[in-house]
Amino acid sequence: MSEHESYMKLALDNAKAMKGQTAPNPLVGAVIVNDNRIVGVGAHLKAGEHHAEIHALRMAGEKAKGGTIYVTLEPCSHHGRTGPCAEALVTAGIKKVIIATLDPNPIVAGNGVRILEKANIEVIVGVCEEESRKMNEVFNKFIVKKQPFMTLKAATTLDGKISSHTWDSKWITSEEARLDVHHLRNEHSGILVGVHTVIQDDPELTTRIPYGRNPIRIILDSTLRIPLESKIVTDKKAETWVFTSKNHNHKIKQELENLGVKVFVTKGKQRVDLHDTMNILGEHNVSSVLIEGGGEVNSSFLKEQLVDKLVLYVAPKLIGGKQSPSFFAGEGIEKMSDAIDLEELDVTKIGKDFKYTGYPTYKNLK
Amino acid sequence: MSEHESYMKLALDNAKAMKGQTAPNPLVGAVIVNDNRIVGVGAHLKAGEHHAEIHALRMAGEKAKGGTIYVTLEPCSHHGRTGPCAEALVTAGIKKVIIATLDPNPIVAGNGVRILEKANIEVIVGVCEEESRKMNEVFNKFIVKKQPFMTLKAATTLDGKISSHTWDSKWITSEEARLDVHHLRNEHSGILVGVHTVIQDDPELTTRIPYGRNPIRIILDSTLRIPLESKIVTDKKAETWVFTSKNHNHKIKQELENLGVKVFVTKGKQRVDLHDTMNILGEHNVSSVLIEGGGEVNSSFLKEQLVDKLVLYVAPKLIGGKQSPSFFAGEGIEKMSDAIDLEELDVTKIGKDFKYTGYPTYKNLK
Repeated sequence: MSEHESYMKLALDNAKAMKGQTAPNPLVGAVIVNDNRIVGVGAHLKAGEHHAEIHALRMAGEKAKGGTIYVTLEPCSHHGRTGPCAEALVTAGIKKVIIATLDPNPIVAGNGVRILEKANIEVIVGVCEEESRKMNEVFNKFIVKKQPFMTLKAATTLDGKISSHTWDSKWITSEEARLDVHHLRNEHSGILVGVHTVIQDDPELTTRIPYGRNPIRIILDSTLRIPLESKIVTDKKAETWVFTSKNHNHKIKQELENLGVKVFVTKGKQRVDLHDTMNILGEHNVSSVLIEGGGEVNSSFLKEQLVDKLVLYVAPKLIGGKQSPSFFAGEGIEKMSDAIDLEELDVTKIGKDFKYTGYPTYKNLK
Repeated sequence: MSEHESYMKLALDNAKAMKGQTAPNPLVGAVIVNDNRIVGVGAHLKAGEHHAEIHALRMAGEKAKGGTIYVTLEPCSHHGRTGPCAEALVTAGIKKVIIATLDPNPIVAGNGVRILEKANIEVIVGVCEEESRKMNEVFNKFIVKKQPFMTLKAATTLDGKISSHTWDSKWITSEEARLDVHHLRNEHSGILVGVHTVIQDDPELTTRIPYGRNPIRIILDSTLRIPLESKIVTDKKAETWVFTSKNHNHKIKQELENLGVKVFVTKGKQRVDLHDTMNILGEHNVSSVLIEGGGEVNSSFLKEQLVDKLVLYVAPKLIGGKQSPSFFAGEGIEKMSDAIDLEELDVTKIGKDFKYTGYPTYKNLK
C-alpha cells in the first residue's frame, strides 16, 4: 500500500463508521497530514452538520497550514447548509488535496477541484476510488436521480424457495442470517413490503438490534386493504407510509391519517405506480429502501428494472415443490439469454447460510 | 503437518489420481518409508489388477524389509482377484503399518489389521481418516449396500430456476461450469435421466473431454416411450440401459434389445421402481450414478431419500416466473422444519458461476 493509500484508508474507515447516520448525505472521511504526522481526522456525522474536512481542519488548528488533506469525496463548492469546504481548505493554507472520488452531485461535479487549483493547491484525484464509490452507492444514485437506492433482500432454500407449498417459511435461514437482516434494516432509510405481507404476517418491520434505527415502513397497497389494527399502524415504533393508487378506499385513507399514517396517492389508476412511488420517496429525502416483499412485489420491481442491489440469503436445505413460491414470481423473463445478470456477485458464509450480494444489470427489454 | 500425515498425503494424492478408473473398487494409495527415505509408492489402478500395497512393495524390493508402509485403506485379508495384502506385508518384512481408514467392506472390516498384529507388526489407524473416507464415499456405500452412490447434479439461476416459463434453458451456466459437468460424468459409472429429457432434448449423454470415459446411459421410462431414433439408442457411443415398469410396451422392448439396448423390467406395476432400479444397478457393478434429470426425476429420488450427494451449479442471473421450473419439483416437503438439510455444504466459484457440493440428510418422514 502506498503512503497515499494508507492515509486514504483511514479516511475511508472513518467515513464508513458513520454508515446509516448521514442520510441523505454521503459518507465522507478526511485526514490531514503535516510533516509526516497526522494532525487532523474528521468525518461527516449527520446531515446539516459539518462536513468531514471542517472537523479535520478544526482538529488540526494551526497545523493545517502547509499540510496535505486526504478526503474520500471531492470538497464541496456550494454554499449549502455548511459553507463550501474547498474555500475553507484554501483559507486554512492546505497545500495538497488527495481525493478518492469526484462528487457526482451535479452542483459540485469538479467545481470543488477548480476552486482548489485556482488557489494553486496541488490536487490528486482517484486514490482508492473504487472503494469510495462503492461506499456511497446510495448517495451516488440519490443525488443524481433523486430516487432512493433500492436493495432487494430475500431468503431462500438452496432450491430457490421462500416457503413450502403450504406457505410455511419458519425458518429458512439461521439466526445469524436473520440478525444480519436487522443490520441491513439499520442502514436503510425505508423498508418496503406489499400489503399482502402485512395481512399475512402482521410484521413489526423494526430493527431489533441494540441502538438500531428503525427505517420508515413503506407499504404498497393499491386499494387500502391494510388492517387498521396491524402492528405497523398501531405500535408507533416507526413511521408508516402507505402508497396507494387512485382506486383506493377514501374512508380508510382518512382513518389511516387519523392514526398517524402517511398516505400517498400515486398516479396509478388501479395499482400503485412504482416509478411515481420512487419519485415521491426521493422528494421526501428517502435515499435508500430495503425491499422485503414477497414474490409478486419483488417481481414488479425487478421487471420495472428498479432494483439496484440484491442481497440474498441462501440456506443449505431443500424444500422442493412445483407450487412452492420463489422470491422472483410473476411471469418471469421469457428467454434465458435475457435473464437479469448480477454483476460483482459476491458470496460469503453467514452462520450456516450463504449471503450473496450483487448488482442487477438489465437487458433492454421491459 | 506431522511426518505421518505428510507421507499419508502422498499416498492420498496417488490414490486420488486414479479417480474414475478403479470402479467398483476403492481408490487406494500406499507409500513405503525406510530409514527416512521413500522407497516405494503405489496405487490401485484398475479393478482386477494389483492393490496399491503390492505395487509399492515391488518398487521397494528388498528395501521394504524393516520399513513402514502408509496405506489409505486397511490392507485386505481375503483371497479375491489378488492375494491378501496383509499377508504380503508380513512376508515382505514390513515393521509398521499406518492406515487412514479401516475397510468398510464386511469381508475385510478389521481382519487385515488382525493379520498384521498377529505377526507383531505395529499398526496405527486413523491418520488423515476423514480425507480418506471422503475420497472413497462411492465405494463405502457400494460395498456395504450393494447399491450405487447417487449424485444429483443440477444447474440453476440464482432464483432457483432450471429454465424460463417457456422452457428455455440455453444456457444457464458458463462454459466453465458446463465443462466441469463433463469431468463429473467422467468420474461416474452411470448417468441417469428420465425419458422426458430424451424426448425433449435428444441428448448424447457422453463425456466430452479428451480421454473422457462415457458412463452407461441409464434411462427411466415407465412405459417405453423412448424414440428408437434417439441418439442414445443409435449412436453406440456408450451403453444404454433402460429401466421400465411392468406396464411397458413389449414390442418396443424387443426392438430396443435388437438395437443393443439393455432393458430392465423393475417391480413397479405402473412406474419404474427406484429402489429396485438401485438394486439392479448394484448387482451389475454400477457403483456411482450421476442423476441429471429434470425436476420430476430429481424429486422422485429426493423424496425416496436416494440421493447421497448434491452438486449444484448456480449462475449469477435471475429469470423469475411463478411457472418457471425448479430442479426439485413434485409436491415438495410440507414444513420448512422438515426440509432436507445439506451437510458439509461447500461452495466454490467456477467461471462466473458457483458450485455447491453437499450431502442431503433426510428427516424421518417419507
